[in-house]
Amino acid sequence: MKLEAPRAGRRVPEEWSAVAIVGVGLIGGSFALALRATGFAGRIIGVSSPDAVRVAIERGIIDSALPLAEAAAMAELIYLARPIEGILSLLDEIDSFVAPGTLITDAGSTKSAICARAIKKIHRGRFVGGHPMAGKEARGASEAEASLFRGRPYVLTSRCDELERLVASFGARVEIISAEEHDVLVAFTSHLPQLISTALAAAIGTEPEAGRVAGPAAMDLTRLALSPYEIWRDIFATNSANIDGALGVFIGKLEGLRAELRGSRIEPEFEDAAAAARALRK
Amino acid sequence: MKLEAPRAGRRVPEEWSAVAIVGVGLIGGSFALALRATGFAGRIIGVSSPDAVRVAIERGIIDSALPLAEAAAMAELIYLARPIEGILSLLDEIDSFVAPGTLITDAGSTKSAICARAIKKIHRGRFVGGHPMAGKEARGASEAEASLFRGRPYVLTSRCDELERLVASFGARVEIISAEEHDVLVAFTSHLPQLISTALAAAIGTEPEAGRVAGPAAMDLTRLALSPYEIWRDIFATNSANIDGALGVFIGKLEGLRAELRGSRIEPEFEDAAAAARALRK
Repeated sequence: MKLEAPRAGRRVPEEWSAVAIVGVGLIGGSFALALRATGFAGRIIGVSSPDAVRVAIERGIIDSALPLAEAAAMAELIYLARPIEGILSLLDEIDSFVAPGTLITDAGSTKSAICARAIKKIHRGRFVGGHPMAGKEARGASEAEASLFRGRPYVLTSRCDELERLVASFGARVEIISAEEHDVLVAFTSHLPQLISTALAAAIGTEPEAGRVAGPAAMDLTRLALSPYEIWRDIFATNSANIDGALGVFIGKLEGLRAELRGSRIEPEFEDAAAAARALRK
Repeated sequence: MKLEAPRAGRRVPEEWSAVAIVGVGLIGGSFALALRATGFAGRIIGVSSPDAVRVAIERGIIDSALPLAEAAAMAELIYLARPIEGILSLLDEIDSFVAPGTLITDAGSTKSAICARAIKKIHRGRFVGGHPMAGKEARGASEAEASLFRGRPYVLTSRCDELERLVASFGARVEIISAEEHDVLVAFTSHLPQLISTALAAAIGTEPEAGRVAGPAAMDLTRLALSPYEIWRDIFATNSANIDGALGVFIGKLEGLRAELRGSRIEPEFEDAAAAARALRK
């Protein structure tokens, strides 16, 4: 295996001869397109379902497709872009395929379970957890775009020169955040909004005539409720304690507002919340 | 007073000689611009603060400004576009100024308190409650636009040929809904989203590092939290029972999801909510 991957371990992305994308969907495909857009001249190998591979080759997202073992052996960088449970399974088996020093990263939406698994299972490769805070409603390789990460935070769970340079070259904003802190923060900024949107849509659904008066506020706040459940199953399974905590904080704030609906103390609550919303935009 | 308003009571908007806009801000100004865009050739009179009047005349939104008593006496239609408490005060005094049969409508965000006051106080004029489900973040006559109501629901609390024709000619979708039902529905579709957004921004504000990972979901759901409190004070004061009810339904749905975070019964909840969100968009 080592003979097949003589370049693994090179620390300069420009010199990599091959990158493997495992799971060529919206995120994996966009990573490949962004990589190519930086001028990367090496080979981009896809490991994915036959349908995804066909679309990805047609669109020029990947150069070719290979089984996991072969792709992993050839690549200097392996990008794991399956759902969380899929990434956990890949981490169980991939280390034996890679050349020593091969860089492995992922795009999973929670990081603690993945990084804990990687610490146990990745010894020949070097693992750095990743999470691009980007996406769109539509999914699949057909929706991939080189600019998906531009202007968005891209979390890495530890420092890594090559990945920091690469992700910054995509126009993303690199954020080095531990897996544990990442999972607390996204419980508030991503998982809580999803549950709120789902609960709001369900609440509005109890009023069959609501569509007659629904304006931009109702539309904006129920958009996430359209998200398919399948991407959330693994997130809830691997971050339920943090999500439960964030829900507790949120419901506490909401009950505080509810108690003051007729009172005067609601105004400072509005002002504090507006300040927090502005701070989020800085 | 009757001699000064010989045309009051004409039932065809095209023949009205004057319309009075009381409160020439975003909504009042947009109503005036939309009215002018339909080809209305009569006079549009503003009743507003000196600053608003100056902007509105500069932008061609109104033709002139007059005190309330004079404007009300001349107009075939009077559009009350102040905040709710301002509309309630106007209803207390306006009836003595108008010619018999003068049409009076409003743009207040809740309808029960306003319609109840109108039943008590409006006898010479004909009152029809209104609520355009439109708006934008910026406010004031400087932000007014003729297309603000286009494609949006515009609630009228009772049938009224002239107003239905006029509002439909703005490109709005006329919805005839009783004041009481309107207030229940907007508690779910407008007031609940505002409180949710405010509580979410406050909850995220408890995590000072959250801005590092905030993506589109957090941004979309905290946008309403930027709204100034002053427009909400009167809404809460006049719809607190319905808002309390909607909050109860929402918190119940959210606690239901919370209890199932690690369970399998959350998937049908997601599917039902997605169906409700889709129904809202039909």
